[in-house]
Amino acid sequence: MRIDVLTLFPELFPGPLAGSVVGRALERKIAELNVTDLRDFALDARGTVDERPYGGGPGMLLMADPVVRALESLRGPGTVVVLTSPRGEVFNQRIARELAKAEHLVLMTGHYEGVDQRAIDLAVDREISLGDFVLASGVLPAMTICDAVIRLLPGALGDDESSEEESFSGGLLEYSQYTRPAVYRGLAVPEVLLNGDHGKIREYRKEERERLTRERRPELWEKYLQQQTEKEV
Amino acid sequence: MRIDVLTLFPELFPGPLAGSVVGRALERKIAELNVTDLRDFALDARGTVDERPYGGGPGMLLMADPVVRALESLRGPGTVVVLTSPRGEVFNQRIARELAKAEHLVLMTGHYEGVDQRAIDLAVDREISLGDFVLASGVLPAMTICDAVIRLLPGALGDDESSEEESFSGGLLEYSQYTRPAVYRGLAVPEVLLNGDHGKIREYRKEERERLTRERRPELWEKYLQQQTEKEV
Repeated sequence: MRIDVLTLFPELFPGPLAGSVVGRALERKIAELNVTDLRDFALDARGTVDERPYGGGPGMLLMADPVVRALESLRGPGTVVVLTSPRGEVFNQRIARELAKAEHLVLMTGHYEGVDQRAIDLAVDREISLGDFVLASGVLPAMTICDAVIRLLPGALGDDESSEEESFSGGLLEYSQYTRPAVYRGLAVPEVLLNGDHGKIREYRKEERERLTRERRPELWEKYLQQQTEKEV
Repeated sequence: MRIDVLTLFPELFPGPLAGSVVGRALERKIAELNVTDLRDFALDARGTVDERPYGGGPGMLLMADPVVRALESLRGPGTVVVLTSPRGEVFNQRIARELAKAEHLVLMTGHYEGVDQRAIDLAVDREISLGDFVLASGVLPAMTICDAVIRLLPGALGDDESSEEESFSGGLLEYSQYTRPAVYRGLAVPEVLLNGDHGKIREYRKEERERLTRERRPELWEKYLQQQTEKEV
């Protein structure tokens, strides 16, 4: 898969993406990450890409023309253009899976001040938000989307790791885990994990996942129950 | 505010946090960011910090002892210890505000394989998740939390920028914005934004925010309506 990032901060990439699983996938050419500086599409030699909003308001706005020309230059057959934006759909594993199927992903980092709406209408396929919080820029959201998408690409993960991914996709939070020693500062590992009965361990872990999801994320739990009911029908 | 990051990937920090508003706040000592390598608290000279989970399962787990000793060494009066974890509460602006009030924040980057539950029970105050997706590590979530928290610290933002923050906190998505030219590729800026009637502009933008929130994020819209009702009572 080819990923192009369009940003005002090209020097920040690949940054943390060079670490761990995703860094290995980039090294092994499972994904190719290119970075384009939005200022290369500026209107003038000074690199102007922003302007004050019509109707007033704080901050500067990215102008339509540099954004549209940059995205047009990056678009080919099978391209999906994503803009990180607090107004977008909230990112989740389902969206990561959808994006991982694209031949070519273009990720434009939003900037808090925003983008002329006409650039979005003309050149952006999806707006994605990382969640309901305010960040200095879309750099970290774009990196996060890259990370989640790249690790889903075939060959990016070892067999060991990919099975964990499956467990998440069941819609429940992960069970609590323990490792040696069996007693640490007076706290013992649950007995069931030590006796080697794999049927009981599976059952215990499933109950743990259900309990934790119910207690911590009631809305996820509701969704899970609904899916279980639909499966039975 | 002092922020300590505890991680297996110290070389990735500050990384993207060095850019933009947050980088400026770090330079101006509004926040101080220290990074601790978890391997400094390893059990042996080879730097061992992980071990296979009791009861079987894929991947390795961070052992309780290195994590607990590292977090104890970082904890002082007024410290809040946060672990990034897919099992945590989902990060949002309310949580960012709460964390911004701490004197001292310790952010431990989770690793997908997980942490011995006893370390969490003994030494972690809050588990925070960035959202319902799977990442290679907690590095990007920890950076994202840092970014959202640091920009809330007094003096981190100019007056211009902080007012935008307020607009987000109203619980609605941002209105669409436009800048010059008035017509771009046949698309015109909405008339109301051009005529200088600030009362009408305010009204138009509020309607836009309500419409967008209703269409794109029905669950946010419900919450907003509820809050409006509570205010009226």
